[in-house]
Amino acid sequence: MKSGIDRERLKKSFEELEKYGLTDRGGINRPALSDMDKGARDTFCKWMKEAGLKVRIDDVGNYYGRRDGLDNNFLPVVMGSHLDTVYYGGRFDGITGVQAALEVVRSLNDNGITTKRPVEICVFTNEEGTRFEPSMLGSGVLAGEFDIDSVYEIEDMDGIKFGEELERIGYKGDKKNRLTQADTYLELHVEQGPVLEKENMEIGVLKGIRGMVHLEVTITGVKDHAGPSPMEYRRDAMMGAANMIAEIEKVAYEVGDGTTTTVGKVKTIPASSNVIPKEVRFSVDIRNEEDSLIDLAVKKIKELIIKISKERGLAYNIEDFWRVDAIHFPQKMVNVVEGSAKERKYKYKMMVSGAGHDASYISMFVPTAMIFVPSIGGLSHCEEEFSEFSDIEKGVNVLYDSVLKCANR
Amino acid sequence: MKSGIDRERLKKSFEELEKYGLTDRGGINRPALSDMDKGARDTFCKWMKEAGLKVRIDDVGNYYGRRDGLDNNFLPVVMGSHLDTVYYGGRFDGITGVQAALEVVRSLNDNGITTKRPVEICVFTNEEGTRFEPSMLGSGVLAGEFDIDSVYEIEDMDGIKFGEELERIGYKGDKKNRLTQADTYLELHVEQGPVLEKENMEIGVLKGIRGMVHLEVTITGVKDHAGPSPMEYRRDAMMGAANMIAEIEKVAYEVGDGTTTTVGKVKTIPASSNVIPKEVRFSVDIRNEEDSLIDLAVKKIKELIIKISKERGLAYNIEDFWRVDAIHFPQKMVNVVEGSAKERKYKYKMMVSGAGHDASYISMFVPTAMIFVPSIGGLSHCEEEFSEFSDIEKGVNVLYDSVLKCANR
Repeated sequence: MKSGIDRERLKKSFEELEKYGLTDRGGINRPALSDMDKGARDTFCKWMKEAGLKVRIDDVGNYYGRRDGLDNNFLPVVMGSHLDTVYYGGRFDGITGVQAALEVVRSLNDNGITTKRPVEICVFTNEEGTRFEPSMLGSGVLAGEFDIDSVYEIEDMDGIKFGEELERIGYKGDKKNRLTQADTYLELHVEQGPVLEKENMEIGVLKGIRGMVHLEVTITGVKDHAGPSPMEYRRDAMMGAANMIAEIEKVAYEVGDGTTTTVGKVKTIPASSNVIPKEVRFSVDIRNEEDSLIDLAVKKIKELIIKISKERGLAYNIEDFWRVDAIHFPQKMVNVVEGSAKERKYKYKMMVSGAGHDASYISMFVPTAMIFVPSIGGLSHCEEEFSEFSDIEKGVNVLYDSVLKCANR
Repeated sequence: MKSGIDRERLKKSFEELEKYGLTDRGGINRPALSDMDKGARDTFCKWMKEAGLKVRIDDVGNYYGRRDGLDNNFLPVVMGSHLDTVYYGGRFDGITGVQAALEVVRSLNDNGITTKRPVEICVFTNEEGTRFEPSMLGSGVLAGEFDIDSVYEIEDMDGIKFGEELERIGYKGDKKNRLTQADTYLELHVEQGPVLEKENMEIGVLKGIRGMVHLEVTITGVKDHAGPSPMEYRRDAMMGAANMIAEIEKVAYEVGDGTTTTVGKVKTIPASSNVIPKEVRFSVDIRNEEDSLIDLAVKKIKELIIKISKERGLAYNIEDFWRVDAIHFPQKMVNVVEGSAKERKYKYKMMVSGAGHDASYISMFVPTAMIFVPSIGGLSHCEEEFSEFSDIEKGVNVLYDSVLKCANR
């Protein structure tokens, strides 16, 4: 099947949009609702209109482009992602999914295809959550996870409110424009991990999104001068924590099946080279595609923290800080994407996403699937983030085929 | 031997001096050269004069009280310590040694004793080094370790210069008043560690001061999103560092003989719960009374850092940040203190100091000895610092006897 995806046109669209936030080191600095975001939004809306789409904006600033189908009583097939970036982020995270969606529409136009169902592009507001916390605010409002009035009150680091910024850049639209129902949702995204590249795969067919538990651990010992206190008498919170963290890594392998454990944040109190820390605080991020395996890993981690604390006369506090259940995409949706990849004879891998995406929230009310394209070096959320356009093109082909299947079903 | 040490007088002197910096929680906040320090200095100088001592001040603000001997051509026997505290420090660190010295002089007066050699009290400026870094500035200048003009230029957190503050509080004295030679130096100090209390000992007889090496270690891996990156592909700087720190603790036991290893400071970069850290920086403090054992521990630590880095594909950098050689007090000086403790039938322990003291610098040019009294719970540099006056009294008795032996030798 010829999709008519135009790699050069796609690349040129990337380059034009990169004007909004391009950094000296070749990344993109485009926090949500900034002037750079406004620039990207204005340009993208112009492009959607030029492609014949009906553009609308909802009350959280998500913006949509609708392509009519043969029967507009059908619910639309929606493609989406985001154009905001983390501070000094990369050129591909989110952006690739949005550009892919536009390229699919342009190709449908080139090929003179009118689908049975309408097709929509949705660009979500503030996916990254680095300017306004938490992340995925735009898709989260659609899923009913966040109340719009509370979202308006969220402040960035400078105390500027989400609602004020949304209004300032001219993207405070109407609640009636929200996506409330859809036939299907398809999101293409860069992998943000090294698997596809390392395993020489061209496409990732996603079965779902891994669940996650975030623990905040505090270990309390006895602060003491590093000089006069013999090892035998110490209750050293850091030595306890180091042994715990080393064991937490092992739990990932023990539980297996793709379980990951990450300790991204460690803080000693005080933080002085000649003082035995009184307290150590660290985060533990535990992920798996099966909630039951997350639960098992969490159980083992809590047990080892308690065991090591007792052995060393330390006090512990474990806070269940955050939990996101694993998402399993509907098998029929996974089959659509897998079939498209197979028909194109691409080397594809069935996998799960380790990170959350707008698809996480949209999947709560719309049958959803996702397509991954390789991230070179697995780098993400940094200026060095990179994907090959030859790989992106393959991903857009799979998206095109999948959209056609869904929209003509 | 009756020393005539008056516990009630000693306690009253503590209480009167505590007016300068007493905190709500019963500690002392008396940073060097602050108004509180000036208050304590003025009061202590008044007391020295009342005790018949000739008071002088040198150019770094160390202040002295001299008690004539039968033959003033002899070099003096000097007792000393400091009256400054860390921010929100305790009532005993440093202060105990200074109060003990005054009580010894008062007792000599009560007993009508004139010693053969002169006896001096020296109160050193800025021992703690928390307002003006580094620590032990007053004694360090006497040892020729710091240049006085550079010391005057040292600024506190607010940019206030040491020299200006010294002048402001009226304690910029004359270079000719410096202690340049002495017969012997004796310092009584609270242990700042738990050993004497835990082992039910009354007196610590110090053989010396432990040497110290301070390493700054940087472990560099690959930053990655905690979600999408499988364990097998990670080069996680924190998991590497945790294993190193756990092994660094074991080195202390392997090398043994009182070796201590402390990791007081750990920093992850970035410090985000869902990002695998790119870099972890940590400090390692290694101490022993024998330099050769410190060297052995440092060698083992460097080897294990290199080994674990290689196994995990991490880069490492180990900076030899600071080194202080171990100090061994002259045997004849140790014998004087031990003999005094033994004659008094006190339960004493031969030990080394883990922390540096003014004695560290003074021992570079004067035969030195130190006496420890127990610290309850080993607490130090905090408002909860505490020593029993019954214990302090025993320490002052040992100091009194030792001073008499040295001054009449």
